[in-house]
Amino acid sequence: MLENNMTREKLWSNLTAPQLRELAESDATVLLPIGSTEQHGGHLPTGVDYFLADEVCRRTALLADPLPIVVAPPIWCGLAEHHMPFGGTLTLSLNTLHALLRDVCRSILRAGFRHILLVNGHGGNVTALNALVNELTSELSASLAVTSYFTAGSHVIARVLQTQQQIMHACEGETSMALAAFPELVRTAEMAQAVGPAISLQSEDSSPIYHSVPFDSIAPRGVAGDARAATGDKGEQLLDGCATALADLLRAGVWRNGQETS
Amino acid sequence: MLENNMTREKLWSNLTAPQLRELAESDATVLLPIGSTEQHGGHLPTGVDYFLADEVCRRTALLADPLPIVVAPPIWCGLAEHHMPFGGTLTLSLNTLHALLRDVCRSILRAGFRHILLVNGHGGNVTALNALVNELTSELSASLAVTSYFTAGSHVIARVLQTQQQIMHACEGETSMALAAFPELVRTAEMAQAVGPAISLQSEDSSPIYHSVPFDSIAPRGVAGDARAATGDKGEQLLDGCATALADLLRAGVWRNGQETS
Amino acid sequence: MLENNMTREKLWSNLTAPQLRELAESDATVLLPIGSTEQHGGHLPTGVDYFLADEVCRRTALLADPLPIVVAPPIWCGLAEHHMPFGGTLTLSLNTLHALLRDVCRSILRAGFRHILLVNGHGGNVTALNALVNELTSELSASLAVTSYFTAGSHVIARVLQTQQQIMHACEGETSMALAAFPELVRTAEMAQAVGPAISLQSEDSSPIYHSVPFDSIAPRGVAGDARAATGDKGEQLLDGCATALADLLRAGVWRNGQETS
Amino acid sequence: MLENNMTREKLWSNLTAPQLRELAESDATVLLPIGSTEQHGGHLPTGVDYFLADEVCRRTALLADPLPIVVAPPIWCGLAEHHMPFGGTLTLSLNTLHALLRDVCRSILRAGFRHILLVNGHGGNVTALNALVNELTSELSASLAVTSYFTAGSHVIARVLQTQQQIMHACEGETSMALAAFPELVRTAEMAQAVGPAISLQSEDSSPIYHSVPFDSIAPRGVAGDARAATGDKGEQLLDGCATALADLLRAGVWRNGQETS
Amino acid sequence: MLENNMTREKLWSNLTAPQLRELAESDATVLLPIGSTEQHGGHLPTGVDYFLADEVCRRTALLADPLPIVVAPPIWCGLAEHHMPFGGTLTLSLNTLHALLRDVCRSILRAGFRHILLVNGHGGNVTALNALVNELTSELSASLAVTSYFTAGSHVIARVLQTQQQIMHACEGETSMALAAFPELVRTAEMAQAVGPAISLQSEDSSPIYHSVPFDSIAPRGVAGDARAATGDKGEQLLDGCATALADLLRAGVWRNGQETS
Amino acid sequence: MLENNMTREKLWSNLTAPQLRELAESDATVLLPIGSTEQHGGHLPTGVDYFLADEVCRRTALLADPLPIVVAPPIWCGLAEHHMPFGGTLTLSLNTLHALLRDVCRSILRAGFRHILLVNGHGGNVTALNALVNELTSELSASLAVTSYFTAGSHVIARVLQTQQQIMHACEGETSMALAAFPELVRTAEMAQAVGPAISLQSEDSSPIYHSVPFDSIAPRGVAGDARAATGDKGEQLLDGCATALADLLRAGVWRNGQETS
Repeated sequence: MLENNMTREKLWSNLTAPQLRELAESDATVLLPIGSTEQHGGHLPTGVDYFLADEVCRRTALLADPLPIVVAPPIWCGLAEHHMPFGGTLTLSLNTLHALLRDVCRSILRAGFRHILLVNGHGGNVTALNALVNELTSELSASLAVTSYFTAGSHVIARVLQTQQQIMHACEGETSMALAAFPELVRTAEMAQAVGPAISLQSEDSSPIYHSVPFDSIAPRGVAGDARAATGDKGEQLLDGCATALADLLRAGVWRNGQETS
Repeated sequence: MLENNMTREKLWSNLTAPQLRELAESDATVLLPIGSTEQHGGHLPTGVDYFLADEVCRRTALLADPLPIVVAPPIWCGLAEHHMPFGGTLTLSLNTLHALLRDVCRSILRAGFRHILLVNGHGGNVTALNALVNELTSELSASLAVTSYFTAGSHVIARVLQTQQQIMHACEGETSMALAAFPELVRTAEMAQAVGPAISLQSEDSSPIYHSVPFDSIAPRGVAGDARAATGDKGEQLLDGCATALADLLRAGVWRNGQETS
Repeated sequence: MLENNMTREKLWSNLTAPQLRELAESDATVLLPIGSTEQHGGHLPTGVDYFLADEVCRRTALLADPLPIVVAPPIWCGLAEHHMPFGGTLTLSLNTLHALLRDVCRSILRAGFRHILLVNGHGGNVTALNALVNELTSELSASLAVTSYFTAGSHVIARVLQTQQQIMHACEGETSMALAAFPELVRTAEMAQAVGPAISLQSEDSSPIYHSVPFDSIAPRGVAGDARAATGDKGEQLLDGCATALADLLRAGVWRNGQETS
Repeated sequence: MLENNMTREKLWSNLTAPQLRELAESDATVLLPIGSTEQHGGHLPTGVDYFLADEVCRRTALLADPLPIVVAPPIWCGLAEHHMPFGGTLTLSLNTLHALLRDVCRSILRAGFRHILLVNGHGGNVTALNALVNELTSELSASLAVTSYFTAGSHVIARVLQTQQQIMHACEGETSMALAAFPELVRTAEMAQAVGPAISLQSEDSSPIYHSVPFDSIAPRGVAGDARAATGDKGEQLLDGCATALADLLRAGVWRNGQETS
Repeated sequence: MLENNMTREKLWSNLTAPQLRELAESDATVLLPIGSTEQHGGHLPTGVDYFLADEVCRRTALLADPLPIVVAPPIWCGLAEHHMPFGGTLTLSLNTLHALLRDVCRSILRAGFRHILLVNGHGGNVTALNALVNELTSELSASLAVTSYFTAGSHVIARVLQTQQQIMHACEGETSMALAAFPELVRTAEMAQAVGPAISLQSEDSSPIYHSVPFDSIAPRGVAGDARAATGDKGEQLLDGCATALADLLRAGVWRNGQETS
Repeated sequence: MLENNMTREKLWSNLTAPQLRELAESDATVLLPIGSTEQHGGHLPTGVDYFLADEVCRRTALLADPLPIVVAPPIWCGLAEHHMPFGGTLTLSLNTLHALLRDVCRSILRAGFRHILLVNGHGGNVTALNALVNELTSELSASLAVTSYFTAGSHVIARVLQTQQQIMHACEGETSMALAAFPELVRTAEMAQAVGPAISLQSEDSSPIYHSVPFDSIAPRGVAGDARAATGDKGEQLLDGCATALADLLRAGVWRNGQETS
């Protein structure tokens, strides 16, 4: 993953308390990456979702310069009940995720920061994070927002990928980004079998009914999409594209526009 | 609202316990309407969102005949923090909504029913209900699903309405349905002022960032869309169209298709 | 149920937010009906307890005129564990009921109202509601009170009924009121079998020991009392009598007198 | 307090684990005294309510012989928010009392006992304990019951007392029992001022409205009733009368009769 | 146990509210004894741990004179899951203990006191009480501290005992103190068998790994140490020694020194 | 940090689900590192405590070979309320930490693993983790244990360090290990000022009283001990020594010996 002198100075855990106090005084935005530790087929490591959320945040912090930004350590466990039958998967209850985000965000606010953006990397977290941002905004009287890096960069994703329009699961997209950011963790020998049904996160033609579906019932190999089409070059474009989109949003002031509920 | 001999026999509260035991034995589906009690401008009553969810469920129960269906009493309080500044608004915390749905759904299951479909009528509930359906499916080991009537009937909504493509808030759509279902509760004299910005629930051009926006900051009159274009005839088409769409989904077996998380 | 131009203007859900803001400014009292959805023998609908609490509140609001009063939507689920074996019954845990009342009452207070009276229609809620009013008064620093309509009107009940002194369950009293308020929902053909043991809510000769008794162990048909003696005329007298008693209490200022704990 | 070789063998804390295992095998009933630590005027110690619940339990255990009985240590803190303004008072929230009773009762059941009777000595606990017994019966699938010693012995109380019909607060009744059971803790010099309004726990003529009343607003000295009429002899009659009534109930099988909810 | 005119005036439950208000005004320290009700072999009563915590507090209150001190009623149930297999044992969950201490401490603070010292008598509570003191200090913004009487008096314990260096369980130490404080509750005939392995609470040579060990797996008789060496004389020295140590700490101002976390 | 082909195959997040299923079948032990993100003076990054817990786990996994071991991602937030005044610090409530550990450990068990060892790197977590291991063992019926790496390796720490006997805070020990494991994150220019009072975690001469002490009140610079004596060579010895000690404990079977509560 991106780890050099420049990113180093963007990561909360790598900074000293005096440095963080200064950043808070300069009204830096805190990016809080959140993903999941869950099965991603036979070719990708279980940490993919939080690795990529973290990676996009690191790149965003550099690209958004000179906007002051701090990247908090990644929340590596999300909502993954639907992947539990595969093994290798960790999951939280909604209540625990709520409590964890409440305490972490409250601490960030007590440290003097005033703007927190959760950057999500796991499809299964999306709906819960939107609901929790509403709750936490009210509970903490704070300026919170959430995005998923694959939503922020949906245009570049649609342009770069060849076998799919958006991120699925252990697919052309995630595998490409893994090949770009941590190639040593991709089991390339397993990629030939890494094919599954196309399952969209927010498809336009989907049924209007929402219910919980065990992932193994629709994708027995744990893969949605076609990882065989993945390349590191595509991954690099995706990561940079998503980070650029996010940096643009931060520059535009993400709290000034947005999707409202009615 | 729809209240005759036929609908009467579809409403849980109107039925006797022996009748409900029989319906459970016939594997009837329970529709659980959920809405909100919240400001809807100067022309609509605060109960609109749950009135309409309830109305669509009553119509669906008739249209889906001979599928056995029971309509539970409507949950009339949802998540409406963003409307609190207007007054007249009631809201639950996410935890309380979770607990309430858990106890009501558990009771329905203990009464012998095996399929529950939440039918939502409030935009501000959508994301939380998806997240809660995931939790409750796991907590109760049950077959739960959720839809919003305006998502189920999105095609008819787009066709019937003239000033908007989908339901907004106290808008052409909601006002039309109110004029059709409970005209005596619409303050028609106030409709001339019932205009506000277009705020879509799931707009395609919206920012990828989600954050909580107080409704009064974007729509000072409490209205999104243009109620002046509302007519009872449009409302009748909308209600029937949404109910027909829902009945079709029930006949197709809503738990057999669906939008998955990855 | 009572539904005309006059009651319409007393129901929270039917009012607009601007109207509710005005009522709050005039220091209107909010009546919050609470009942249960539970088995009531073979002749009465499961919603009886909340239908009647709601009905008494609507009548009270008219009779108390010109005192400003708003009737909130009825809480239709209470504590009914002891009726669960009959089927058709919904129940909350004490914690969930606590949370629900806390959020609803807090919302009412935030909407500017200062006095809330819970009006109960279910015997199984009585003891819990007293305890919760104590808790909520302290938690919300608010002026809350609770009554059961059958306690407020106990004198008229004792006078009107012939086979019992007070309200039992699916009995002469409840059946009479159902015949008065929603006769179309009473299965009169089943009334001949609607007889059970006399079980008093607050009997003077009862054992000083309190424990939870499954209702089916003492009343296998789900009825306590004798519904055969019910008539719509008695029901009308009961409903008006209870509403008049409640209106008198409101005029006298219910928060100025009361039953204290020591 | 009653403390001799015979009572000693009835108290859980005084017994060894092997003795308690034997008692569980003989299906002994566990009496769990519960009271309050709260202001009782200038003449009585703050522990009166739990001292007396404990004392009645000790006497009951002897009088019920040869029924096997164990008296658990007294729960000395209850619901006393309404006495907090006087100082010297401890109180629990309803949630904490629920959790405490759940854990203690579950432990008693795990120790092999099958019947638990809560014996209450504090008016402010009555309504909550009834509600909690309902919850705990369902949560623990256990045989629980609750009584207040002054309800069990209401007939003897009405007969013995001269200035009141039942127990009030720091009154003729409680002061008499204190003079009988722990005279060294009564400040007799203060008794001349220990007079206050008559406040009944379950008065027949009280308002049907229940709301929380700060005790200092109705009884500025913290006394309800007239302690000047108290004597140790009356106290002895009361304690023995209540314990005899309770022993009779235990012999009759308290779980076989009872006050039901409908 | 120590019960005379002097101790009487040190016990919260024995004092009147006006007396407690005065003590609060004089900034008295509140000692809150906490122990456990759990098996202690065949020779000791199950209440030993809270009896001794209470006893040491009573003696401390006298020895610390003229420092103003109040002893709250003892919390007689702690964390004893590891003793449950023996029967006769009561235990709380950590959450319940947290809630109970929160409510009791908050009440003490509301009564005007500003310093609370928990005095523990049960090894199984130690680690949880330290953690809870941290939480409660933050939650209540209060001055709380905790000690175990056997830690405060560790030097005298090491000097007096012959077969062990510190308190174990139902051992030479606890049995000696029981013989001194409540000899009538010791089954002396059982003492000959009251021998078990040496299990230290804070041994220097123990493994650095902490895990939960069922007590019956290491001490089948429920005894750790050798009760045969116990005498009432040793017990008197221990109780006075621990109380003297505690009184010295109170005089020195326990909140001014202490063991910190880093 | 240690990151090569060998450690890579020991990290849960880096492994695929099929690999983790195999490890579960071979009864691998899961090490769960837990630390804190908190101020560590002006010379160390805020992540030190979790960096070091993670580092020791990685080394242990290699040294314990061929014992099968998996290292879970580090829990980077612990209990750090006492460091909040310095800024740059994140903290959880005890309840949230409990919920987080419960969900993560339950997931690990559901993934088929049977032994979990929490490896702690933060003094402020010690007492809470012991208490939580007791709770979780009972809640999950599982084999859990906890150690702190500085307790496991206390002998090597005492031998290697020159100005202190054990780990303090941002001290000779932590700074040395930081210089060994992540030298690029140490602000060496700040080390000259990195001196503070000696504060031991488990000092022998400390007061027996435990209370919460804000760290800034005793160490205004946020440092306890003398970081000037730190060297990378000492750090390497410490890390290897602690990991070796932990590997030895794992080989000996950490669940077979241990420190018990009585």
